[in-house]
Amino acid sequence: MDEKKKRLYEIIEVSQGKDVASLSYDKLMLVTVLVGLVPLTMKKTNVYAEAIDILTAIIFLFDYAMRFYTADYKMGIKCYKAYVAHFFTPMSIIDLMAIVPVFTLFFPGSNAIGLFRIFKVFRVLKLLRYSKTMVIIENVMRKVKQQLMAVLVLTVMYITASAMFIFQIEPNLFNNFFDALYWATISITTIGYGDISPVTIPGRLLTMVSALVGVAVIALPSGIITAAYMDETKKTKSKFQK
Amino acid sequence: MDEKKKRLYEIIEVSQGKDVASLSYDKLMLVTVLVGLVPLTMKKTNVYAEAIDILTAIIFLFDYAMRFYTADYKMGIKCYKAYVAHFFTPMSIIDLMAIVPVFTLFFPGSNAIGLFRIFKVFRVLKLLRYSKTMVIIENVMRKVKQQLMAVLVLTVMYITASAMFIFQIEPNLFNNFFDALYWATISITTIGYGDISPVTIPGRLLTMVSALVGVAVIALPSGIITAAYMDETKKTKSKFQK
Amino acid sequence: MDEKKKRLYEIIEVSQGKDVASLSYDKLMLVTVLVGLVPLTMKKTNVYAEAIDILTAIIFLFDYAMRFYTADYKMGIKCYKAYVAHFFTPMSIIDLMAIVPVFTLFFPGSNAIGLFRIFKVFRVLKLLRYSKTMVIIENVMRKVKQQLMAVLVLTVMYITASAMFIFQIEPNLFNNFFDALYWATISITTIGYGDISPVTIPGRLLTMVSALVGVAVIALPSGIITAAYMDETKKTKSKFQK
Amino acid sequence: MDEKKKRLYEIIEVSQGKDVASLSYDKLMLVTVLVGLVPLTMKKTNVYAEAIDILTAIIFLFDYAMRFYTADYKMGIKCYKAYVAHFFTPMSIIDLMAIVPVFTLFFPGSNAIGLFRIFKVFRVLKLLRYSKTMVIIENVMRKVKQQLMAVLVLTVMYITASAMFIFQIEPNLFNNFFDALYWATISITTIGYGDISPVTIPGRLLTMVSALVGVAVIALPSGIITAAYMDETKKTKSKFQK
Repeated sequence: MDEKKKRLYEIIEVSQGKDVASLSYDKLMLVTVLVGLVPLTMKKTNVYAEAIDILTAIIFLFDYAMRFYTADYKMGIKCYKAYVAHFFTPMSIIDLMAIVPVFTLFFPGSNAIGLFRIFKVFRVLKLLRYSKTMVIIENVMRKVKQQLMAVLVLTVMYITASAMFIFQIEPNLFNNFFDALYWATISITTIGYGDISPVTIPGRLLTMVSALVGVAVIALPSGIITAAYMDETKKTKSKFQK
Repeated sequence: MDEKKKRLYEIIEVSQGKDVASLSYDKLMLVTVLVGLVPLTMKKTNVYAEAIDILTAIIFLFDYAMRFYTADYKMGIKCYKAYVAHFFTPMSIIDLMAIVPVFTLFFPGSNAIGLFRIFKVFRVLKLLRYSKTMVIIENVMRKVKQQLMAVLVLTVMYITASAMFIFQIEPNLFNNFFDALYWATISITTIGYGDISPVTIPGRLLTMVSALVGVAVIALPSGIITAAYMDETKKTKSKFQK
Repeated sequence: MDEKKKRLYEIIEVSQGKDVASLSYDKLMLVTVLVGLVPLTMKKTNVYAEAIDILTAIIFLFDYAMRFYTADYKMGIKCYKAYVAHFFTPMSIIDLMAIVPVFTLFFPGSNAIGLFRIFKVFRVLKLLRYSKTMVIIENVMRKVKQQLMAVLVLTVMYITASAMFIFQIEPNLFNNFFDALYWATISITTIGYGDISPVTIPGRLLTMVSALVGVAVIALPSGIITAAYMDETKKTKSKFQK
Repeated sequence: MDEKKKRLYEIIEVSQGKDVASLSYDKLMLVTVLVGLVPLTMKKTNVYAEAIDILTAIIFLFDYAMRFYTADYKMGIKCYKAYVAHFFTPMSIIDLMAIVPVFTLFFPGSNAIGLFRIFKVFRVLKLLRYSKTMVIIENVMRKVKQQLMAVLVLTVMYITASAMFIFQIEPNLFNNFFDALYWATISITTIGYGDISPVTIPGRLLTMVSALVGVAVIALPSGIITAAYMDETKKTKSKFQK
């Protein structure tokens, strides 16, 4: 029994070598996820989209069942707790979100069924580990995760402060405070659609100051990622030189 | 008496360890500042906003009084000079600006009461020191402060020169020179709202040259921050390796 | 015979020293390519444009013939296989694409004859090797090619996911999914024309999140290129110091 | 005689120490240049602007005369050749351009008198050498000048190729090829005003590809400047450590 479970687990996990069954399963899941996203690119749902939604949901359901079944082997605990713990892992929740919405198909007036399915991409992202370059980028991103989060917090604070200033200085530009936040985000990231732009002198003056200071704020992630990237490439090199 | 003052000072300052009273005070101030900013997100003032303005002003007033009272302990000088010096510290001025505008509530026709209150955020920013990553970012920013100021001076000079050129070459685009400065700032920072954009050939030609040279100008802060960031992470590492 | 072929090959290839004939040929090809691009800058074709198209095509045809003739010397194989292999090299295909479209001139209703001719620029780019700085940049770009491709794949995935989200959340903004992809690309690269911009609260919220995360995605190429550039300049230095 | 000339030269050059006369002259020239730029910020010329134009021109004329007179001392050649050589130095030409246009004041219908005067800023920029940080930035910029020029050449080539493609694919968007060049420059630098943006599917597709590749092109100056900046700060440090 345990041998069978181990084999099943090996197949559904990302293949590590030349395991044909595991590689095939990886490919099947990749295709299923990609096909499952096709209805998201259609403006109006139709019979084909619904067929894809149901079909992919069935495959995802089997996948979910097998992952649930092998949870105790994966966790290394022979106990019902393994199943509970597995149920609440982020990846398991993403898997469930890719299945459940399909049931809304049987009720009228529902839409955007597969929206949560996009997160399923995270499982597919694991397949990128076949590429050595992708592993380096993954390592860099993993290393700077905490620092990028800190920069994000600072950026959001800066955006909020900018939004508060402009909202008081040039209130006629915005319907509500959320619009001011939207304007500040689009400005600080230098996208600048131009759908909202200041017209009064104080508003424009504030925008200029905010933009010039914002250049330093937005340069932080670039600095962090560059530093981490140089560190990672140095490491990879010295590994090969040993 | 001195022991009491010392204790009071410890409480109102950012907590260094597991001092429950100090930690609670930090949290109280954080909540008060955040709540005090809420009226800034409202388009029209109302009873609730005024209530918040008055309530937070009262808390800020007590905070200001305590900081003023412990000024001599903080400065380490037993003299009236400590109070005078404290009164003119930037943080103390920011604290005062968060209190005074509330009195305008009692006169009609005033608005934007809490605008200066946004600067109060600087005191809350100190709470970020709980995070090790934030300390690194703070160190980096402190180190490059002077260099970023120098780049800012150069950028403002470049913006002014660009604005002068376009203002002479395509004067019909702008109501006044300030508009040309606004256009140049929005262009050099690559925001580009599009509310003002050149239409004649010489104006567009100048915009193109200005944009291409501007890429190098705007790359300077990025280079400075990256260099400082790499230096800082190297230092932190070697500190842990010793 | 072989000596003649060798000499011909030396002339048509980028000159390595002070070979006057080879240098002249380089200059002739540079001028021909540049002149051949002139019709692409005209809105309506005219007699002069057609004359240029035909004349440059004739020169390109001679160039193509000579390169084909010297293919066996270049490859170092005395066999018909050399000619076949040469025919399918990317540079040879680009050369052919710069010649063939000219025949459409003899049929009415055709336009954009020289569009493929732009790729001919790649052959001219080789002339940039005269500059030492260009060689450094070329080395950097060659070294990071694989990594930039990986980042491009990630960026396209991120753009597609953003497009799917916005297409479901704010469908009235777009005629079809391609428009959503276009919007996402223009937003993530921070160009932000503003021809398409979100108007509903969920759409704007998604745009804000997408823009803030996008800052980190778009900082990756900058980090990769900077790391490679520092590595390259270090190498060049240590080479001179030896 | 020579002693007088030497003294005069010391005064008009940027002061090196605590030479009061030289420092005063620096300040006088700074103020004159800044005041001389004021008319450029006015939409319509008036009596005050003309008065400033004439007054500053007179001061610039004296400055020019003194620099011409001390040219032989500066060059270290006792010969008329020194004056000729001095006349054609870039700084001397800039000085002349700041004086000559004022004579157009005496003829009606002229405008933009002081436009060339902006370049006079280059002489004022020398005053920035008082700041140590500015010297570092100047060194960095001087070191990367050649490399940034190479990148500029590549960028202009990339912009031209993009413009040619879009001009053939979506010709109705542009009045002439210059507009296509303008569009490409504004897009690659990620300004994106939105005054010109593609509407057809091929045009948008090309814009997307061009934007994604352009991210790597525009990351080059950032990489070059960062590398040079890190090198410069390392040097400055090791200098102080010796």
